[in-house]
Amino acid sequence: MKENSTTRMLHFDQAILNALKEDIPWEDVSANAVVPEGALGEAELIAKQDGVMAGLPVFRRAFELLDDGAEIALFVQEGDEVRKGQKLAVVRGKMRAILSAERTALNFLQRMSGIATYTRSVAAYLEGTHTKLLDTRKTTPNLRIFEKYAVSVGGGNNHRFNLSDGVLLKDNHIGAAGGVKEAIAAARAYAPFVRKIEIEVETLAQLKDALEAGAEIVMLDNMSDDVLKEAVALAKGKAEIEVSGNVTRENIARLASLGVDYISSGALTHSAPILDVSLKNLHPIK
Amino acid sequence: MKENSTTRMLHFDQAILNALKEDIPWEDVSANAVVPEGALGEAELIAKQDGVMAGLPVFRRAFELLDDGAEIALFVQEGDEVRKGQKLAVVRGKMRAILSAERTALNFLQRMSGIATYTRSVAAYLEGTHTKLLDTRKTTPNLRIFEKYAVSVGGGNNHRFNLSDGVLLKDNHIGAAGGVKEAIAAARAYAPFVRKIEIEVETLAQLKDALEAGAEIVMLDNMSDDVLKEAVALAKGKAEIEVSGNVTRENIARLASLGVDYISSGALTHSAPILDVSLKNLHPIK
Amino acid sequence: MKENSTTRMLHFDQAILNALKEDIPWEDVSANAVVPEGALGEAELIAKQDGVMAGLPVFRRAFELLDDGAEIALFVQEGDEVRKGQKLAVVRGKMRAILSAERTALNFLQRMSGIATYTRSVAAYLEGTHTKLLDTRKTTPNLRIFEKYAVSVGGGNNHRFNLSDGVLLKDNHIGAAGGVKEAIAAARAYAPFVRKIEIEVETLAQLKDALEAGAEIVMLDNMSDDVLKEAVALAKGKAEIEVSGNVTRENIARLASLGVDYISSGALTHSAPILDVSLKNLHPIK
Amino acid sequence: MKENSTTRMLHFDQAILNALKEDIPWEDVSANAVVPEGALGEAELIAKQDGVMAGLPVFRRAFELLDDGAEIALFVQEGDEVRKGQKLAVVRGKMRAILSAERTALNFLQRMSGIATYTRSVAAYLEGTHTKLLDTRKTTPNLRIFEKYAVSVGGGNNHRFNLSDGVLLKDNHIGAAGGVKEAIAAARAYAPFVRKIEIEVETLAQLKDALEAGAEIVMLDNMSDDVLKEAVALAKGKAEIEVSGNVTRENIARLASLGVDYISSGALTHSAPILDVSLKNLHPIK
Amino acid sequence: MKENSTTRMLHFDQAILNALKEDIPWEDVSANAVVPEGALGEAELIAKQDGVMAGLPVFRRAFELLDDGAEIALFVQEGDEVRKGQKLAVVRGKMRAILSAERTALNFLQRMSGIATYTRSVAAYLEGTHTKLLDTRKTTPNLRIFEKYAVSVGGGNNHRFNLSDGVLLKDNHIGAAGGVKEAIAAARAYAPFVRKIEIEVETLAQLKDALEAGAEIVMLDNMSDDVLKEAVALAKGKAEIEVSGNVTRENIARLASLGVDYISSGALTHSAPILDVSLKNLHPIK
Amino acid sequence: MKENSTTRMLHFDQAILNALKEDIPWEDVSANAVVPEGALGEAELIAKQDGVMAGLPVFRRAFELLDDGAEIALFVQEGDEVRKGQKLAVVRGKMRAILSAERTALNFLQRMSGIATYTRSVAAYLEGTHTKLLDTRKTTPNLRIFEKYAVSVGGGNNHRFNLSDGVLLKDNHIGAAGGVKEAIAAARAYAPFVRKIEIEVETLAQLKDALEAGAEIVMLDNMSDDVLKEAVALAKGKAEIEVSGNVTRENIARLASLGVDYISSGALTHSAPILDVSLKNLHPIK
Repeated sequence: MKENSTTRMLHFDQAILNALKEDIPWEDVSANAVVPEGALGEAELIAKQDGVMAGLPVFRRAFELLDDGAEIALFVQEGDEVRKGQKLAVVRGKMRAILSAERTALNFLQRMSGIATYTRSVAAYLEGTHTKLLDTRKTTPNLRIFEKYAVSVGGGNNHRFNLSDGVLLKDNHIGAAGGVKEAIAAARAYAPFVRKIEIEVETLAQLKDALEAGAEIVMLDNMSDDVLKEAVALAKGKAEIEVSGNVTRENIARLASLGVDYISSGALTHSAPILDVSLKNLHPIK
Repeated sequence: MKENSTTRMLHFDQAILNALKEDIPWEDVSANAVVPEGALGEAELIAKQDGVMAGLPVFRRAFELLDDGAEIALFVQEGDEVRKGQKLAVVRGKMRAILSAERTALNFLQRMSGIATYTRSVAAYLEGTHTKLLDTRKTTPNLRIFEKYAVSVGGGNNHRFNLSDGVLLKDNHIGAAGGVKEAIAAARAYAPFVRKIEIEVETLAQLKDALEAGAEIVMLDNMSDDVLKEAVALAKGKAEIEVSGNVTRENIARLASLGVDYISSGALTHSAPILDVSLKNLHPIK
Repeated sequence: MKENSTTRMLHFDQAILNALKEDIPWEDVSANAVVPEGALGEAELIAKQDGVMAGLPVFRRAFELLDDGAEIALFVQEGDEVRKGQKLAVVRGKMRAILSAERTALNFLQRMSGIATYTRSVAAYLEGTHTKLLDTRKTTPNLRIFEKYAVSVGGGNNHRFNLSDGVLLKDNHIGAAGGVKEAIAAARAYAPFVRKIEIEVETLAQLKDALEAGAEIVMLDNMSDDVLKEAVALAKGKAEIEVSGNVTRENIARLASLGVDYISSGALTHSAPILDVSLKNLHPIK
Repeated sequence: MKENSTTRMLHFDQAILNALKEDIPWEDVSANAVVPEGALGEAELIAKQDGVMAGLPVFRRAFELLDDGAEIALFVQEGDEVRKGQKLAVVRGKMRAILSAERTALNFLQRMSGIATYTRSVAAYLEGTHTKLLDTRKTTPNLRIFEKYAVSVGGGNNHRFNLSDGVLLKDNHIGAAGGVKEAIAAARAYAPFVRKIEIEVETLAQLKDALEAGAEIVMLDNMSDDVLKEAVALAKGKAEIEVSGNVTRENIARLASLGVDYISSGALTHSAPILDVSLKNLHPIK
Repeated sequence: MKENSTTRMLHFDQAILNALKEDIPWEDVSANAVVPEGALGEAELIAKQDGVMAGLPVFRRAFELLDDGAEIALFVQEGDEVRKGQKLAVVRGKMRAILSAERTALNFLQRMSGIATYTRSVAAYLEGTHTKLLDTRKTTPNLRIFEKYAVSVGGGNNHRFNLSDGVLLKDNHIGAAGGVKEAIAAARAYAPFVRKIEIEVETLAQLKDALEAGAEIVMLDNMSDDVLKEAVALAKGKAEIEVSGNVTRENIARLASLGVDYISSGALTHSAPILDVSLKNLHPIK
Repeated sequence: MKENSTTRMLHFDQAILNALKEDIPWEDVSANAVVPEGALGEAELIAKQDGVMAGLPVFRRAFELLDDGAEIALFVQEGDEVRKGQKLAVVRGKMRAILSAERTALNFLQRMSGIATYTRSVAAYLEGTHTKLLDTRKTTPNLRIFEKYAVSVGGGNNHRFNLSDGVLLKDNHIGAAGGVKEAIAAARAYAPFVRKIEIEVETLAQLKDALEAGAEIVMLDNMSDDVLKEAVALAKGKAEIEVSGNVTRENIARLASLGVDYISSGALTHSAPILDVSLKNLHPIK
């Protein structure tokens, strides 16, 4: 289980503030029309489905950014599994702020928890194997740090964050460079030396070239199980092996059994359904 | 079918630029290592599933923002239904820029088209009825204008955009105001006069109060079919009726048959699976 | 009387901070040259004219943003009528910060109170009638939320905030659509369903079309009193009627007597003279 | 007559863009509902009052920023005097963009031209004298560069732009420093050496101290005409003299006759009425 | 010795925050991997060279912005001379935040102290003379307020901050205007009246023109010592004299002996070596 | 030799624009006072020292951002060695824009070329060895991408860009984790899997632990030459070795002869003197 760190909040805060402004471009007319300024209230966060929580510190900040006196008591932690109906938190503070921040807070929490829940469920297929689950760059535009964080809370591993902090050479790069070895050599000469070099190959011949050229990670694409097994054997001790896979129990299990090191899945971030949670029972407190 | 308008691009551009910077915080090391500066290329956008396109102007801008000489020939338009394998567009320009913008362009297009596709499929259940489909504020933080636009491309109607531009009084607002009539009166006195007043009611008694107080839209919550039918009859000609519904063919058909004016669904934006599209066959051109 | 709400401050804060930076691009050389770091002081806010206060929370924030230990004791509230010479507030805190924030704080307060004062004076002409006063979009660029808020504090009603959150069809729109009915139909089909449709008409024939097509608000332009009276009778119970008027006592009274629902005036925001208030008697405190 | 310079546009552009976004947070629903994408149109800018133009380049940019193919033909220049009914410009481009940018373009132009017009009228009182008219920092928050520019177009002179680029020592600074001479000495030691030192004095004794201490500008406050005359004589050749004055023909003429170098007026920016200009006769072009 | 002022922090804060985000685009993976969330620590700031401190409030803010509970005890003040090995401060707070902010805090402090140290060493050559040392606009892009502040802490004087707040007419300006007198007249007519007019001249004839035209500061360029001496005599009491000089002890002493008022040096900001300071002995506290 | 890439310009542009605004907060009063709007001119960029060019695309953009008609003819390329007096480029465009952008353009170019020049000179000590030169995170706040780019143009290699995209475990991390092996295990479990793990060790015992735990890079600190030689032998084929070194010819040569893979130097970015280049001979063209 991972907690939210101070440094990550540097970036979360701005996005949460922008989301509040997106939902409240000048004021919450409904709340301000009927709720007296300064009136205090309390509401409960309830799980409406079983799942894995991620984004609680984000949920909390949404209220704090509108009302610095807001108090959010959390009864669960990042990564905890929760059950339908479970009380997850209590929010106390200005009633107007609770009403105005509610949707923004939930929109973040539901999506992040949805990703964590889905990731946990996929990672479960890999239990007992040495294969690990990876995310991809198929994330929602401008929300990548939230989504990669949620993947890690759910038990997945993060692949590179962006085009600058990792090298991944695909067929187009290989074509442009003139071959597998040339592409790897060019990348090693060009990229900051702390980058691992990953290359995607489609044949055993390419794989051998990649290993000879010193690729640290090899992504195997479009290979039959037999070829894959041979590839894993070839790479053993020389490079890590990643395979990109459709997320079905059968597929994941099969790939793991072939001994690949990593299975990456775009679906973790682009297709995770939200986790339904809800703010209930808002009532005034004196 | 709706085209992208000039004014909407005012806001799209900044978000696309931010997304490019998110994916490329300083440079694309893989592309820059192997592709010569200035080399030109061409690639095709291919549908990998049947669906409805939304976000083509966003897709185009992602390339233009990295390479103002890029040319994107679109073979389909916003709202068009496409088939698996169909060629949707050709992108021509600097090969580095095509490689570097690809993921960002696709991340937008896949999500927006996913929403349009899903919305179209749900709206289809309402064909032949007078009931219309509505979205909600359950959108991805900081992407609301993209997602509401995609809903409208898919054939849905937009509910309010935010807490400032529409009034929706729920149980908490009614409680704070002291009753349905009091809440409506307070909202009418407070909100800009061009706002329609919508209120959520749970009983026929509340509905009558709402209609007497002049609510323009009434959201009916938690009512049995019989009560719902009576409510629709009561409201006829006095207010529009919205019901929030789970998205199943049966449920949607049932609600429409009861004569409600609008069915709103958060799932249109928070649970639409992406539409798989892909950039293929990048090759150099002279 | 309306208090400033939490949610509105979301946006006010950034504008106040920008205004402070506009006036202090690196430091206040006069204050920093002569006032010792950390020296504390106190000053009084005095009305130099009779008027209506608006913007006191903005005034307070200007000091707090430079000195989070500043204390601003307010003796009047938003919307209060004040008299020349009246002591409105006391500001206590770092003397440097008081000197440095003074002009920014006053620039906001004077303009906002000027608008509230002028609005109140115009609204007074409508007392005893059922006609209400509306603002327009003729506001100072980038200060609309401040100015529309000041109008509401002064007793005016807000019209739409922008081109996205309200529909107003004018002659150009009608021309482009091919007629009044066509324009209204197009708007109803296109706009989010919570938008009221307003249309500006110049003849009774246009008005009838508008009413038949279901316009919720009609703006009557360029009509004689006789025609106006007939128009009001026609629209009664079907749509609300807005007239745009020059702000003179006679004109306003005449329009109200004809029974229009709303009179809108750009002058509320584009021509309100400032309310003169001043920070006096700054002195050191120990 | 002064043209807008390249460097000023650096800052104007961002503010114009923000103002467009303020008025169009996602799209212009009225225009987009009825005007076909891509339809072209033309409209005329007409003066509805006599006055002095300022802000034409800003007016132009508002349209260009929404439609980079827009063409704005200007028939007058910055600083030109125009007559009621005069055709000032023709705007050609996408009809949607013309409708959507109209209000923002006019809001800037009306305010800037209003300031230029008012400044020109006050400066006229000083014709034939050696006294010059100055603006102040009593400007609209976040619009100072627009307003000071308009003052200079109208024939006024700019005082300091902010608290960093000019030194003005008032009673509070003098009190904190322990006297006029001490304040001037402190400012000279502290401020960048290119800053002129200005000090506000209320007595002839203070004035003598200021002159001895080498003040470059002296602001005379609260002095009778006799004392003022003596002060002017004392300062002659040693420092420039500024007086802050209420803007009435009599007052301005009186102060000029006493021989002061500068009369400053906050009213130029905080109380100038707008100049009414209007966009007329929008019609389609093929 | 000058303290950091409130108003300057307005701008420092944003730059420090941006620098933290530059170094921590999502999280500090090293610290977060091994240091438990919430663990507290303490470290010492040690001088590794003799020098002059500048930027201590910036150093402090870097930690506070990541951890608002951080406590930084400073044992020296801005402008203090420190010795190699001296303990300058103790930082206490969350260990993760100390590790994550360390580099950013030091990058600012080392550069600012380097400038102050170098400025102090050059200013020392001028002790006992009436000549003062000036900085230039040859500063690091986007760090000018930090660097000009450091110059002033080191004992230098600030020249103009930018192209807007000071007038400096060089040969190109003189050429464009048609002569020294014409250039000065044009600048006086155009520039805000609080600006001193400075002009760069290369001959005594030009100098005479400049003095007659009322230049307040004259920069002498490319003159032999004899000519320079004559120039100083000519300008005495009429204008201040600035010379731009290479920073060598001999050169500075020679120029001062000729009686110039100011020697400006770009090297103060573009070539000052950093002052080596280091955060040492981080250890956990309970 | 490396060209500037499209993707890097994404970020450069904003920083250049900010720097222009820093130097021109509202207008260039000197240029605008004397140079007619629209007058065209031409100037030459001349090297005033021998060195290596870096930042030419940044230099060009500074002019283009103020004048989109500006034409900059470059006679040298990034990474070229130039000689004192050599003509490097010609700038043609609006004279006002050339004057106004000159300082900003040069401030960037001089610093970046200074870094490239210094890096080249240090890298030269390593010619004929297999040791490579590395930069560090000791860069100017908010200019890291410019400075790391300049290092690479000069022939150095980039180390990690920030705390997120590389793992470097130092004594504090080892202490917090409980040992070298524990720290490496924690980092491997926590960090994105594409990160190489680097650890700093002070003894051969620590080195052995690091190698056993699978560290990919080892930084050797505070070791005598004999120990260093043994360390290199131990690590051979298992991990890359980095040593941080003072930049003297002797020191660099000694370290290289010991066989280390990388020598890192903070001085490349924090102590490189600028390369003096100058814009000369600005003259009008018709």
